[in-house]
Amino acid sequence: MDAIPDQTELPGQRGPQQHEMRERVIRAAEARFRHYGYGKTTVSEIAADLSVSSAYIYKFFDSKLAICEAVCGSLLGRIDEALWQEARTQKTAAERLRRVYRLLLEHSLALFFHDRQMHDMVATGMEHRWSSIERHIEVMSEVARFLVQEGRASGEFERKTPLEEVAGAVASTFAPFCHPALLEGSVDEDLTARAEAVATIVLRGLAA
Amino acid sequence: MDAIPDQTELPGQRGPQQHEMRERVIRAAEARFRHYGYGKTTVSEIAADLSVSSAYIYKFFDSKLAICEAVCGSLLGRIDEALWQEARTQKTAAERLRRVYRLLLEHSLALFFHDRQMHDMVATGMEHRWSSIERHIEVMSEVARFLVQEGRASGEFERKTPLEEVAGAVASTFAPFCHPALLEGSVDEDLTARAEAVATIVLRGLAA
Repeated sequence: MDAIPDQTELPGQRGPQQHEMRERVIRAAEARFRHYGYGKTTVSEIAADLSVSSAYIYKFFDSKLAICEAVCGSLLGRIDEALWQEARTQKTAAERLRRVYRLLLEHSLALFFHDRQMHDMVATGMEHRWSSIERHIEVMSEVARFLVQEGRASGEFERKTPLEEVAGAVASTFAPFCHPALLEGSVDEDLTARAEAVATIVLRGLAA
Repeated sequence: MDAIPDQTELPGQRGPQQHEMRERVIRAAEARFRHYGYGKTTVSEIAADLSVSSAYIYKFFDSKLAICEAVCGSLLGRIDEALWQEARTQKTAAERLRRVYRLLLEHSLALFFHDRQMHDMVATGMEHRWSSIERHIEVMSEVARFLVQEGRASGEFERKTPLEEVAGAVASTFAPFCHPALLEGSVDEDLTARAEAVATIVLRGLAA
């Protein structure tokens, strides 16, 4: 199983950040949310699954919502790790960026649509403007900036346009392939081909 | 006052399509929705504003929801007309496309944020997958395709990539500047600069 990305600094979290119990709660909650949905899961059920008391869980999270935010952060964190893993391979920056569009689409579709319960959870998170979602958006921007820098360093990409402007523009073009509201509106379209086409035009735009 | 774009073929509409009364209902409803919101407006109030009976209004629309959809179509139709007007000017295709990004952003922000009541109405429409919203999405795609064709005809844009692929990709990059959920998440950012940056990279990608 993948490691759970660092959840420190999320609100509603208490006690030692790296405690193994925190990770166990997140995993147990994720399994419950996945099977029964966020609404139908109680903290005492999560506690029972772990053979601990609810009070013990409350040492780490101040509410079910805080657990939910941590689960959401964990799910999005796994997408972020897949993006970083691709971004750091030895391929050309252009190839890596193209793959990032596809990965983002694949992982986002899996999260939002193959798993309806999880979709509802993330929707709740977007409504509450959870910091785990803000962080995911930030990571996507960082990956875009990193790859633009890499392409500039290798001479693949032009260097005249200010880096932040270009990186921000690239990150904006990720939106149709990662935002649940946009993915939901495009389920009938061939999103893989669309992501490919956007990657192509953006890469032409970046080229030296 | 601008003409109301053609509302034929929207569901829940009855009676003669071009009847002047249909337009008057849409305008009266829009004014009510703008001041009091969709939820607080009744068909009998709209009827009273027009000095007609509710029954008369029901000759043209089968429900308040159908009136609401027509109002939504009217508002989005005005954005579409602004886009087409720009797309058909005599500037270079590149200049026109750049302006389309800005216009789309300005009109969408005005609709969704300067007018909270209207925002709620459009949100309702997106939930119900109204055909007026589908049509708006289609018009944006058509404008993108038209401008790519124009740029290819004038020799500004490359012609090797299949037209539909390129046009679709360009339309996808409009999303951050027209989708309420994305605009809402980016209110702190300088969206005008971002739209400009996306236009720049896309135009580089389109260039011959």
